[in-house]
Amino acid sequence: MYGLMGSLKAAEGRRPELIQLLLAESGDMPGCLSYVVAEDPADELTVWVTEVWKDAAAHKASLQLPGVKAVIARARPLIANFGEYRETRPVGGHGLAD
Amino acid sequence: MYGLMGSLKAAEGRRPELIQLLLAESGDMPGCLSYVVAEDPADELTVWVTEVWKDAAAHKASLQLPGVKAVIARARPLIANFGEYRETRPVGGHGLAD
Repeated sequence: MYGLMGSLKAAEGRRPELIQLLLAESGDMPGCLSYVVAEDPADELTVWVTEVWKDAAAHKASLQLPGVKAVIARARPLIANFGEYRETRPVGGHGLAD
Repeated sequence: MYGLMGSLKAAEGRRPELIQLLLAESGDMPGCLSYVVAEDPADELTVWVTEVWKDAAAHKASLQLPGVKAVIARARPLIANFGEYRETRPVGGHGLAD
């Protein structure tokens, strides 16, 4: 499996909108086993995204899905900057969808 | 929802065993919506754990489950030190079990 965890900072006042966008396509990405969007309770602009994919190729392919491309284009102006970006190698657990 | 993401460093050579322990009870914790254990591809001793719970109380209660207490006791000698520990407030996504 292939994992990602990262943070991004919304433009002032735009976090709720950014989160809605990030969630919009999250149920419909082939090879995506988990995709969780979270608010940072310590910073009102920061969003955390943790992802588990079947493999890195599935993640890469998702970036070419029309729905995902549309979300990225709409999300861009809502993002002030990117924070952490970490790849992981998930090995198992609970809550991994098919 | 209540989220946690954290890292821990295994004692030399003990990461595989530590991961097996962390996974052992992960399917059987009430209120746990996601629990993913991952290797850090950049460091052969580091393990990442990301968790989503119904609420903070469900997480706290899990630490009192006999199976979880047993895992913690067995895992302790396999852990060299704890790294990051971050609370999040998950708002939605894909792969959140009931």
